[in-house]
Formats: sequence, structure tokens, C-alpha cells
Amino acid sequence: MELENNKVLIRPAGTLQILSKHEVAQLCDHSDKGLNELLRQCTLAVLNTGSKEDSSMALLSAHPDYQIHVNAKGRGLQVEIDNVPKNAFVNGEIITGLQEHLWAVIRDLIYAKNEILEAKEFNLEDSFDITNAIFHFARNAQLLKSGVSPNIVVCWGGHSISLDEYKYTKHVGYHLGLRKLDICTGCGPGAMKGPMKGAVLGHGKQRYTNGRYIGLTEPGIIAAEAPNAIVNELTIFPDIEKRLEAFVRLGHGIVIFPGGAGTMEEILYLLTILMHPENQNLPFPVAFTAPESYRNYFDSVLRFIELTLGASACSKFEVFIEQPEELADFMSNGFERVREYRKNNSDAYYFNWKLHIPYEVQQPFNPTHENVAALNLNRDQPPHLLASQLRRAFSAIVAGNVKQDAVQMVAEKGPFHIHGDPEIMREMDNLLKDFVKQKRMKLGDAHYEPCYKIVTE
Amino acid sequence: MELENNKVLIRPAGTLQILSKHEVAQLCDHSDKGLNELLRQCTLAVLNTGSKEDSSMALLSAHPDYQIHVNAKGRGLQVEIDNVPKNAFVNGEIITGLQEHLWAVIRDLIYAKNEILEAKEFNLEDSFDITNAIFHFARNAQLLKSGVSPNIVVCWGGHSISLDEYKYTKHVGYHLGLRKLDICTGCGPGAMKGPMKGAVLGHGKQRYTNGRYIGLTEPGIIAAEAPNAIVNELTIFPDIEKRLEAFVRLGHGIVIFPGGAGTMEEILYLLTILMHPENQNLPFPVAFTAPESYRNYFDSVLRFIELTLGASACSKFEVFIEQPEELADFMSNGFERVREYRKNNSDAYYFNWKLHIPYEVQQPFNPTHENVAALNLNRDQPPHLLASQLRRAFSAIVAGNVKQDAVQMVAEKGPFHIHGDPEIMREMDNLLKDFVKQKRMKLGDAHYEPCYKIVTE
Amino acid sequence: MELENNKVLIRPAGTLQILSKHEVAQLCDHSDKGLNELLRQCTLAVLNTGSKEDSSMALLSAHPDYQIHVNAKGRGLQVEIDNVPKNAFVNGEIITGLQEHLWAVIRDLIYAKNEILEAKEFNLEDSFDITNAIFHFARNAQLLKSGVSPNIVVCWGGHSISLDEYKYTKHVGYHLGLRKLDICTGCGPGAMKGPMKGAVLGHGKQRYTNGRYIGLTEPGIIAAEAPNAIVNELTIFPDIEKRLEAFVRLGHGIVIFPGGAGTMEEILYLLTILMHPENQNLPFPVAFTAPESYRNYFDSVLRFIELTLGASACSKFEVFIEQPEELADFMSNGFERVREYRKNNSDAYYFNWKLHIPYEVQQPFNPTHENVAALNLNRDQPPHLLASQLRRAFSAIVAGNVKQDAVQMVAEKGPFHIHGDPEIMREMDNLLKDFVKQKRMKLGDAHYEPCYKIVTE
Amino acid sequence: MELENNKVLIRPAGTLQILSKHEVAQLCDHSDKGLNELLRQCTLAVLNTGSKEDSSMALLSAHPDYQIHVNAKGRGLQVEIDNVPKNAFVNGEIITGLQEHLWAVIRDLIYAKNEILEAKEFNLEDSFDITNAIFHFARNAQLLKSGVSPNIVVCWGGHSISLDEYKYTKHVGYHLGLRKLDICTGCGPGAMKGPMKGAVLGHGKQRYTNGRYIGLTEPGIIAAEAPNAIVNELTIFPDIEKRLEAFVRLGHGIVIFPGGAGTMEEILYLLTILMHPENQNLPFPVAFTAPESYRNYFDSVLRFIELTLGASACSKFEVFIEQPEELADFMSNGFERVREYRKNNSDAYYFNWKLHIPYEVQQPFNPTHENVAALNLNRDQPPHLLASQLRRAFSAIVAGNVKQDAVQMVAEKGPFHIHGDPEIMREMDNLLKDFVKQKRMKLGDAHYEPCYKIVTE
Repeated sequence: MELENNKVLIRPAGTLQILSKHEVAQLCDHSDKGLNELLRQCTLAVLNTGSKEDSSMALLSAHPDYQIHVNAKGRGLQVEIDNVPKNAFVNGEIITGLQEHLWAVIRDLIYAKNEILEAKEFNLEDSFDITNAIFHFARNAQLLKSGVSPNIVVCWGGHSISLDEYKYTKHVGYHLGLRKLDICTGCGPGAMKGPMKGAVLGHGKQRYTNGRYIGLTEPGIIAAEAPNAIVNELTIFPDIEKRLEAFVRLGHGIVIFPGGAGTMEEILYLLTILMHPENQNLPFPVAFTAPESYRNYFDSVLRFIELTLGASACSKFEVFIEQPEELADFMSNGFERVREYRKNNSDAYYFNWKLHIPYEVQQPFNPTHENVAALNLNRDQPPHLLASQLRRAFSAIVAGNVKQDAVQMVAEKGPFHIHGDPEIMREMDNLLKDFVKQKRMKLGDAHYEPCYKIVTE
Repeated sequence: MELENNKVLIRPAGTLQILSKHEVAQLCDHSDKGLNELLRQCTLAVLNTGSKEDSSMALLSAHPDYQIHVNAKGRGLQVEIDNVPKNAFVNGEIITGLQEHLWAVIRDLIYAKNEILEAKEFNLEDSFDITNAIFHFARNAQLLKSGVSPNIVVCWGGHSISLDEYKYTKHVGYHLGLRKLDICTGCGPGAMKGPMKGAVLGHGKQRYTNGRYIGLTEPGIIAAEAPNAIVNELTIFPDIEKRLEAFVRLGHGIVIFPGGAGTMEEILYLLTILMHPENQNLPFPVAFTAPESYRNYFDSVLRFIELTLGASACSKFEVFIEQPEELADFMSNGFERVREYRKNNSDAYYFNWKLHIPYEVQQPFNPTHENVAALNLNRDQPPHLLASQLRRAFSAIVAGNVKQDAVQMVAEKGPFHIHGDPEIMREMDNLLKDFVKQKRMKLGDAHYEPCYKIVTE
Repeated sequence: MELENNKVLIRPAGTLQILSKHEVAQLCDHSDKGLNELLRQCTLAVLNTGSKEDSSMALLSAHPDYQIHVNAKGRGLQVEIDNVPKNAFVNGEIITGLQEHLWAVIRDLIYAKNEILEAKEFNLEDSFDITNAIFHFARNAQLLKSGVSPNIVVCWGGHSISLDEYKYTKHVGYHLGLRKLDICTGCGPGAMKGPMKGAVLGHGKQRYTNGRYIGLTEPGIIAAEAPNAIVNELTIFPDIEKRLEAFVRLGHGIVIFPGGAGTMEEILYLLTILMHPENQNLPFPVAFTAPESYRNYFDSVLRFIELTLGASACSKFEVFIEQPEELADFMSNGFERVREYRKNNSDAYYFNWKLHIPYEVQQPFNPTHENVAALNLNRDQPPHLLASQLRRAFSAIVAGNVKQDAVQMVAEKGPFHIHGDPEIMREMDNLLKDFVKQKRMKLGDAHYEPCYKIVTE
Repeated sequence: MELENNKVLIRPAGTLQILSKHEVAQLCDHSDKGLNELLRQCTLAVLNTGSKEDSSMALLSAHPDYQIHVNAKGRGLQVEIDNVPKNAFVNGEIITGLQEHLWAVIRDLIYAKNEILEAKEFNLEDSFDITNAIFHFARNAQLLKSGVSPNIVVCWGGHSISLDEYKYTKHVGYHLGLRKLDICTGCGPGAMKGPMKGAVLGHGKQRYTNGRYIGLTEPGIIAAEAPNAIVNELTIFPDIEKRLEAFVRLGHGIVIFPGGAGTMEEILYLLTILMHPENQNLPFPVAFTAPESYRNYFDSVLRFIELTLGASACSKFEVFIEQPEELADFMSNGFERVREYRKNNSDAYYFNWKLHIPYEVQQPFNPTHENVAALNLNRDQPPHLLASQLRRAFSAIVAGNVKQDAVQMVAEKGPFHIHGDPEIMREMDNLLKDFVKQKRMKLGDAHYEPCYKIVTE
């Protein structure tokens, strides 16, 4: 690596990065057909690690001179970058972990464009083809390892959490690491980072030298939730739905820490899948866990689930309050059952082909006032369909809170009207009020103005 | 691996072999749309190593019960084979090198079908796209290594050679190996195997543990020229022209041993490229070499080249008679010039993008009597075009000697009529007579009946 | 590993552990000539990691049934242990890091007995031979790595420290780790553990996969300061003086955190060496560092050094208050000077042969009342000799505080009388009073009763 | 490596070579107490590989300017050599395998002097201590590997053999290699080199990347039988008896090719051990093997053994004439029995502790006329003792043929008189006459003048 006039030249070390002339041209193409703009955004997000910036727009406008140019020459790939953010450097060199993230961005942007989005190989309107495309994408990113027993724990939860919660996520990660389990999160700080830091120490004590710290992200959120340099397998999926499916296809179990309303959306996504009749016998360990002081979060959540979707829905989750070791044992034992099940059913350990994911959750929900009003939040349907409709309601609330388009729509047309079965509406109202009280709805606002209106007529 | 009732189960060890459900289905599909028949032929050829069988048809009819079935399960890929040829086993296990060849076949058949032949990504009627497809194919087969200086020696020459010649190819390989050069051949016995065996010893003495023994083949010839188990990077290109292009794009220099008339075709292929005006300044070391007792072979060849294409054509080759060390130094030094050239011209070490290969040699020549008669074998054209026309003439002779279709055509319509410039015709006649005298035209025939007629009117 | 009736069988994995029949017999020999008793003590200490026990005696009496038996058989060494402490296990297996420590104990006990203490090869009354023995011991423990530039940071400081101080040691370790520096400490908790934990994360981000976490201990303190499982190179030196010499021969620089009175003894040990005329030009970076809230500790220490040994003594140390990055840069840059110096002077990077260590500090000081009274604490000598005498005075105080023999002597004969130059005595008195005030003299005592009396007549 | 004025500087790469100041001084010490002269002889022999020189004296006088100097500095060991023989170089660098041999010489000379010969640790007059010293020596040379099943085949036989025999040794090696067996020989050409070359190819086909090619030599013969660069574990034992014991302690089975009279001495050494009552139940596969055209050699040998030591002596050997695959299977199966035996008897796989080797064969036989005359070659003793006496007789003949001292004694005092039981004498006479006829007694002599006289009165 050479550094001169704020210009940096780096070459991938060890990783295989061989590009064709055409691919290099795509990466350097500034036009709409090219990849340079996307490359610029994603690599800047990666190199801006540790900063508090959390929007792509703000990030780019804060670094107008940041440029990236790709060459394939001589011994292999070379990247030239202007004006790399200062905190990417230690001793005049970009932190190795961040360099690796940069190569991952290049690998994934090219593959997404040429082999997934623009290739005719996959029909992205077809459920099986979507899954197949995710498989191909993950395989190209070397996320699929043969010869390894199930050991990937997906960790979900809030990004902006208290110090107490953060420490607890580290303890959980430490005990998972001691059991030689790998960690997969959505990248970013908080509950996405703590379990990895803990696992690094646990793995170290076990001399488990190939510990995997998998980060799954996508171009739309990478700026807001920049991957920590600990992440040693970063993958940038083409969009948020494929990323979500990747979590449940690649992970062998899921740990959920307290989070914002978005976490509720993820819980309902999981319930839509796990309560689906085709998935009834599939072992899939999912745990709710929190330190003692945050016990009330899951109390609220479980009460809501029970009263809307029934007790059997609650049985999909095991709850561990301030019990990192017990939680780790639960995962470890659960993975053994996953292994046996897949062995007996000739399913791969590295990809959960047998899990049925309905087409409707593979597609984005567009939160317009009309679509929200049209949701069926009544009990005249099987629970997994109700879960799916509830998920969309929460998805709309998340959008109305933070996503630019939806925020503006709400500003213009007033809050989303959510109506349905009276009891469900009442419970939903209670849960949301709890979230408001716990300041989990939106960051930094002293007073929260709801973007929704629960209609209980 | 388990062996029972002539049934063998194997799993890839170490190699990454992760297949999608769809790919597994293709491999098991016996229909024309599927890959099972091709898989059966190629893997049988691979496992039949060491046998003297040299035709795909004969091979298959000799092993009617050979079957192969692919599963993806649990820890990864698994292959079930019935009736593996006995000589593939040592101590009840298939030789590891052969197992690796089997995985290579699977990898390449799938990629060829889905990403090269049936994908819309490459226009196989376009010269650049053909090259790009070869690049993608080679990359998928992990033939392209970044961070390595030019060091691949391609060895060409006869398969059926005398013991003296064979020993000499081993000596050459030994001295190439001592210089830490890697070997790439077309697979099979004779001059394709000797240099690898020699290089293994040379590499061993230098503790060059990652020595590469690259075998490039294609489905049509793999049965006749089965890869030796020493080959540790086997690639099955989709067809013979792509394989030929791969040799000159991947290799950094070429060593040519005495061979049959087919070797003459390869020499003229090289001349077509190396004499092309766009390739004038490109360093590309090519050597003719033979033991003392086979000196006359290259005397004939060079005389023919000089009198037809001119002295400058001869200057493309360096000749080494019984000089393995000097030859190895010549390659070693030549590679240093290749390295400098590519470095200065920002070309990759691992793929010779800058080499111009005319579209006409990327396409097969169809040797009908009409096409042969239409060849322009006169001096009214630049030498590289004449070389290209001569190549086609030799290609027709090779076909007329051994390829089923052409042999039958000749039987029906009489020999191919080859005509052109009288001096060229005379020299061609002389060269072919030398080949006949040296028994290099066709194997096993006491009396050779020419499939061609030189018309010198 | 098998576990049955509290009996565990383990075999070393990867590590080379080949013992002769004689060595196995020594390890199983319970007599005074054998090693079993020492093996039992040391391995119990290792396996008791994480416990709060801090005395060898207490540890052994708490685990009367703990037994260890060594076999050499079949594939290699095997150890059978009865009643391993519960916290050594995760998921029914002993934590890998602890297993490694166990093999280190075996390796070092055998080598110490057979090759150092009982061999005739080294005259342990001779300064050079002591150093040579340390070299041999370290080489056998594979602590000496060739081909590596200077990068070992020794960290010294208190074991029992506040949470704030502990966090700070982690931050320092993190920034050292980001600079790919390795960590060496004396094992145990507090300032011995924090830098390693931090470095693990820094190394992880840099993909510095061979990070070294070196722990140097000896049989007398291993129980009190059990090695953390992060330590991946544990060495049990034969005695405390050889361990101390190993720190300065193997480490390329030293970071000192606030500590107890023992830390003062170590600082004076360093000054004795660094102020020695023969070591004047030897680069050896030493830093004092503490978080802001502990700034006063080094104020007191430096005031004492300046007023007793002079300003030039203070210049041996660089001070960093709440500046982990600056400290890490100071070490990194200092190591570059160490490298240049050793290169120019043909000294090994992995062993500081050129450092002169006077024979007197290679030998233990026996803290009797007579010996303490005989110390020369006056200015009529070169500073490095005065430093040496002061070191002994502090050594006596440490012993009088915590070591069984000395505590009893003080109980019988009253406090040690320390006398000398009045100003030196006054400063010593002030410093010790500061330590008392800061509760650094002795753990757990509400009221500290001094074991010394400063005589200032 | 730098080359200038015939001076070469090399540093060990990868291998750990850390020397103390004292050891470096020993290596540079030209006096009798030092090691430089021995170092010079042994390293010259190593670097003179491929030459036909076969005596240490001749070698040294042919290279009077060869000098070697050892430094320990900076990153590690460095060796400076003047006037390295030209054939050690390829492309201006010493062949890596030869460099490794050089480090092996340094390692072994130092260990032999300091830890075996001059240390008080071993009583070299005591049988167990001799064995223990060999264990320590082999361990230091890293010849002992834990975690590996028995797989070392020792190959013995002639150095100067016909091309047919040489090819056969390669075939044998190839089939041993295909079975993943390792090869151990005494270094040098002929039957010592062929099996290794063959095994390299067999190992290559099996991707058995850690193939061991072990060469055991000693300072007295290294010049005459220079190690081939394929040898990747070279060990220079202190003397010929320890080397011989190392073969049977480290090897798990032995293959004997036809050889000179020395081979007969080795066969009798083996019989002395294998017929010893304490070794009756120990599995130890030993095979005689030769190509068809050399069948008569073993006919003679077996007839001699049967008529002198009895049929049960012959049963210790399995005979394979032109059967390399059957031989390889015999070894492979035999090793499985060795493994089971050692497992059941708690003996190490890597060192044959249980094999009883009588003190008398651990000591050199001094072949004076008196000692030869005093041999008891009668049947009034157990066969293993008679075998031992016969071994000495052959040892004397070997010495009288080629060893300087003995040759001179014979010249002065006439041939050794060998007498004993008439039938034994007659068979011995026949066997020796066969050897003379087969030109196996002494190299290069048209007419062989016996150094012995069989007295049959």
C-alpha cells in the first residue's frame, strides 16, 4: 500500500480477486449502467467504520472528494482511492479487515449485477428461483462451507442500545464462542457487534482459529450500519428481502436481543415462516434473551404474540433472562437436532433448502395508505397468515418512522390507519405504547408523534 | 469412501464442492437436456486412467454397467458410482488424484452448460466474447492465480513416442521443475506426461510444494487422452478451440516436442498468431526440443516453415537439441521478459489479454472436399494468413487420417485435393513424405495410404 | 477426550509432545526426586483458571482428590486426570487453551529439571551461564522466533485493579494489537489480562492471525496468578529471577501500569539495568501509562525517582496519561529503533544478548533484618548501584507484606529498619505513605501495619 | 541469498534455527574442541550432491577453498560459505533441499556434541542409555511424529546397482508411495535413492503432501553416500551403530534389495535382533525383493541362512521377486499388525521401545586379526548369538575390503583367518564366492583378491 497526496493504492492479499476486463470497466463506469457510483457509496461506508454517520446521503456529502478506481494489472487487482477517511488507517495503512470488506463489496456488486439482476438465469418473480439466486449469491461469496456441522448463530436486536445491554450481548457472544459457534449479524453497532466481540475471546480461548464473524448487509443500509472490522465474511446482498432470507437459510438458529420496532417486524417475519404448516417439523432454535434489567421488553412482546397469534406461537421461542451460558447450551443442543434432521432428510448443513418461505415475504411490502388500510388483521385466517399481515403493519410503522418516502407521505396524508379485530388492535396499541414509553420508536426525539393510528371502532 | 457390491461412495475432501438443487438435478438427468450422459463418459475416462483404451465409444462399451449418481446432502456433495474400473483403486480406495479429477469434471460440465453455452451472457460468435468466456471458465476452474509471476510452461508433442523421447521429456520437466516453473499440457501419455513426472522431482528438490500440473482437455478427447493422476488442476473446456486458446492465454511460453502431423497443425496455429501484426512486440518464448536422435524431425519442420513462410517465421522458435538445462534457462529468462512486458503494459500475469487471436482460428475448420479445395495456399497474402490457410490444410489431413466423419468422406470421394503455389506444394509434399517415413502419420498402420493429394500442376 | 467418574483423558492435538520412557517415569514419580508433586500443583493452578484462590496451599487443600498421571503410548502422549475443577470445562471438554497450558507445564518442568537445574551444562553461579540457560529454556519453549522483527510489548502492573484501570489496560492492548504488536505479561488477572483481551480484538481487525499472548510465570506464583486461557505461549521458568530476566531479554519494550509496591521493585530492577554504563546506548522503550484518574500514581513514582536517582533516571521512561494511541505509536516507533540497532550490531531480534544484566540482580535477595540493615542507601555510589540497593529495600517490603517467611520474621523481630541518606529516606517514606493511602500495600486490610521502619536519624 | 566472489550467504527459511552465542562460537571454532572442521566436511558432502566422489578425503582435497562460517544475527541464523560446488546451484541459488540439509547438519552436530557425547546425561556404556540417547537425538531432529500410524518403510540395499535394479527400486517406491507409506534410507545413490523417487510420484498421485523421505547418515559416510536433495528429513547420527539402531527403532518394516557384502552384514544384524528370545512376538515385517533377473541373489542368501541358522531364521523374511504391488501390500498389512501390537502394549508408534537390542550389537566390532580369529562360529550356541558372531565376520570382510585401517592391516598381516564349524565355513565360502562372481565384493576391481581366508580344517 502506498499513500501519497491522500491517494491510496491497495491490492488484495491472499484473497482471490481476479476480474475480467469487462468487469473492471463496469466498476470504473460512472454512468447509470456502470457500478462506480454504487461502489463509491458502499466502499465509503465500509471505510468510514466507527463514525457516527448513519445515512448514506449525509456520508457522501461529507466526503465529496472520495473517489475509487479499479485496475486489473500484473499480479492482480489494484484499487486506487482518493481521500480515504482518516479513521480507516493505523500506522499509515488501512486496517486489514476494512481492506477485506472492500474486496467483498467489489465481488458482490459485480455478481449481483451480472449474474443475479441482469442475467436471465433466474426468474426473480418465482419463489424457487429467488431462493436459488440467494444460494448462488451466497456460494459466490464463499458463505457456504461443506464439511462443517451446523454452528451459525444469527444475532438480531437493536443497534442503539444501553451500555448494560451491550455488555450482555458480549457475554452471550463469549459463551457462544466458547462452544465454537459462529456468529452472523446484520452488521453495524450494538447487538450486531457485541456478540462478535465476545465470540472473538471465546474462540481465542478454544484456539478455534477459523471463527466466522459473518455480516450480511445490502447497499441501502450499509452506510447506516457500517460493518465492524471484526466481520471476516462480509456479504452485500442485492436487496433487503434477499438479505433477510439469507439469515434464515444460512443461520442454524437465531438469538434475539431487545430492539426497536424493527425487531418486532423481524419476529413476525420469523413467525410467518415458523408457523407455516410446511415448516412444522423443522428444528429451528430461536431464543429471546436480555439482561435482567430489560426483562420487561420480552414480557410485552410475548404477551402481544400470545394474545394475537396464540400460545403455540410463543412456543417457537425460548426465553433466557440473564442466562448467557444456558442460552449457549440451548443453541448448541438445538444445532445437534438441526444436524440430525438434515442428515436424515438429506438436506445440506450449509443451506436450509427445506425451509418453506412463502413468496409474499420474499417480496417487499409497499407501505402506502391504501396498502396499510387493506391489511387483514382479523382472526379469520390461519395464524401464519395473520402473522404475515401483522408484519406488514409493523413494516409500515418502521417506514413511517424513518424511511424518507413514507415519512413524507405521512406528513401529507396523516398517519396510517390500522384497523382490524378489536382485541388485536388493543394489544397492538398497548405494545406500541410500551415501545414509545421505552423510547424504542425513534431515535433522538424527545416527543414521539405516532405515524399510525390504531382504529378500534 | 465405502465400497460394497462394486458401489463406491465418495465425498470431496478439502475442495469446495457446493451444488444447488438444480445443479444436482442436471447431473442426474439422463435426458438430452441433462448432464448425466456426459458426466458418465468423462468420469469413466478419468477413472480408467492407465488403460490403453483410446476411444470414447470403445471405453463406454467396455464398461456398460458403469453408472454415476450425484447427491448433495448433509456435510456436502456425495457421489455414488457403480462398477469403477479396478485400476482406479489402491488399497480399496480410489486414488486421491483421480477423485479430484472427478470433482473437476462436475465443476466444469455444470459451468460450461449453465454459464457459457446456455447463458446469454456471452455471444459465442464474437471474438472478444469468446475470449471473455474462456476467462470466466478458467477463473471458475481456479486456473487464474493472482500474485504469481509468469511461470507456466505449456508442453506440446506426441502422445505415442519412443522410450528415448519419453525419457527426454522427463529430463526437460526435471530442469523446468528445478527452476520452479509449472507445467501445463493437454493430458494423456507421452510428451504430456513425461514433463510432469520430471517436474515433480525437480519441484520436490526445491521444496516447491505448490507445483502446478495443469491439464487442459475437452469432452471429445478426454477418453483418448485420459489425464494422469499427477495432474492437479484438471479443466475440461467446452470444445477444442477454447482449449487451444486457453493454452496460449494461460501459458507464458511453449515447449514443443516432436509429434505427429497434429503437432504441425499446432505449430501453424501458433504461427498464425505470433506472426499477426498486432502481436509483433509481445514476448512469447517458444522452443522446439528433442533428444539428439530425433534432431531430424525439427530439421524437416524448420525447412518447411522457412521455405513457405520465410526466415522470420523460423525466428519465432528457439531450437534445443539434447539441451534440457539450456532450454529451461531460456524459458526462465523469457518469462522474466514476459513479466516486464505485462507489468509495463498493465496486463495481467495470469491471462494474456493482449495477445490478439483472430476470429478465424477461434472457430473450427470443417474439412470437406470443397473447403479444402477452396484454401488459398499462395504467396499473395501476408505470412500470418498463409500460415492460417496451411493450418487448415494440415487440420484436414489429421481429420482424414483419424476422425470418423472425415475418414468416411475420403473413403467415398477420394483424397482431399490440396493445391496452391508450386514451391509450397513441393515442400508440403516433402514434409508429409518425411512424416510418412518417420511413421508419424497414423498409428499402427504398416502401410500408410494418404488421405490427401498434393496437386502441383 | 473422555470423561467418566470425574476422570479425564486428554491427548495433545497438533502440539508436539513426545516423551521418553524416563521422562514419563519422572512425571509419575511421587518421590522428592520425581516431578509428580510439582506437576500436580502447577496443572491444578492452570486448570483452576478464573477462580479467586490466590495461594498454592489453599488451592491444593481445596482439591485433595486432584491427581494427574502421564502415559506415553501409541499415537503419542496421554494424560489422565482425576477431579478436574468444574470451571475448566465447556460442553464436557476442557477448554483447549487450558489443555495447551497443561502441555506447557509438562514441557517446562522436564526441561528445567533435566537440562537446567540438574545438568552440568550450565554453571548457575555464573552470570553468562545463567543468561545462556535462560536462552536454552526459552528456545525449548519455542519462545524464540526467527524471521520476525521486534514486536513484543511486555506489560507490567497491578493484578488487583479497579474497573476503570482494567478498561484502560484493554484500550492500550487494543491499540497495540492494531499495530500488530504482541503482548507478554506475567500471567494472572488485572493488568496482566486486560492488554491481552484488547490485543485479541486489535489483532482480529488486522487479521493478524498469529498473535502471540505470552505468559511468563514460575512454579511459586502460578497458583496465585493463574494464566488466562488467552495466553497461547505459556512458559513456566524455574524461578522468579530467571523469569524476570526473560522479560527483559525477550521483550522489546515495556509498558508499566500502576501497581502495588511490587511494581516499584520492578521499576527499580529496570533502572538498575538501564542506568548501567554498558547499557547506555541500547534502545529500550519503556512507558508509564494510566488513565486520567490515576495520574497521581506516576506523579509520586517519578518524584521519588528524580529526587533519589536524578532526572536522568526519569528520562528512561516516557509517560502517557489516557493516551493509548500515542503510547502504541511510541512503542511501534521504538521497536523500529530496536530493530535498527540490533541489525547494525548483529544482535538477534529474538533475544537481547547485548543487554548487560549485573550478576547481583540475577540472584535472589534474602530479606533478613541483617541484610536489610546492611543496604547502602546513600549517594556515595553510581545511580545504577543505588537503584539496585533501593530495589532490595522494596523487595524486603513486599516480602514483609505477603511472603510467609518474611511476615513471620517481622512478627518476631519487629519491622525491618531501613536507613540511609536523609533525603532519600524522606522521599521513600513519602512514597510509601502515598501507597498506603492509595491502598496499594496489601490487599484486603482495612488498616495497614507497616513491616518496615524508615530510620531517618 | 547473495552470491558474490564465490561467496554465498544463506538464511534458513521456515525452519527454526535459533542458536545461542556459545553454539555459534563452537561452529566457528577451528580447533579440536570446536565443530568447524566437522561442519566443513559434512556440509561440503551435502553440497557436493550428484558428484561421483565417494571418499571424504578425496572430497576435501578437491575443494581446498571451501569454507563455512556461521553467524546469528537480526532475524536469525546466517551462514556464509566460500566456494560452494557449482552443481549445488540452479539459477544462481542453492537448491532448497540442499539448504535444508545444511541446517540439519548444523542442528545435529551441535546436539551430538553438547547433549549426547559430552553431556553427562547419558551413560554411553549402558544399553538403555544408548537407546535413550538415540531417542533424544531423533526427537531433537523432529523425526518422531505423534498422532501418526506406523508407516515408515526402511529400504536397504546396494548403492552401486544396475539400471534394471535401479528401475525396480523406483517401482517398489512408487507402489509404497501409492499406499501413503514413507521412505527411510541411509542416503546416497542406488537402492537408497530409487525408492524415494518412486514414492514422490506415488505420493503425488495420492496428494499425500507430507510425504517423508528420511535419510539417516553419520559423519563417516556422508561424503561417500551424499544425501539426495529429495531427502526432506536428514539426520546425521553421531556414529554408525546409533544410526543402525535408529533404523530399527524408527522404521516399522524393512525392505532389502540386493546389495554388496555390507547388506549381508545388515541382514545378520537384523537376525541377531529378530531371533532374540525377547523379540519373538514383536511384529516386524521384513521383505527381500529383487527384479526377476536378480532372483539368484536372494537364493544364495537364503540358502546360507537356512543352512547356518536354520529354517526358522528364513521365516523372518518374506520374498518378493518382481512383485512391487504385493510387496507394498505386505508392508501395508504388516504395519496394521504393528499398530495393533503397539496399541495393545502401550508402546509408541514413533519409537520401537519394546524391541530388545543386545548391548553387543550397539557397540562397534574392531576387526583385528585377533578379534576375527576369536569369533565363535560354531553351533554350540543359540542361533541369535551365532548370527551375531557371523555378523562380525562379515563386518570384518567389509572392513578388509574398503576401510583404510583394515585394508592396511590385511596388507601387512595377510587375510583374516575365519574358522569354525565346517559346514558353516563351507556355506560361507560358497556365499562369498557367489558374491565375488556377481562382482559385489568391491567396486571397480577386475580381479578380487580376498581379504579373508576361510579355514575349514
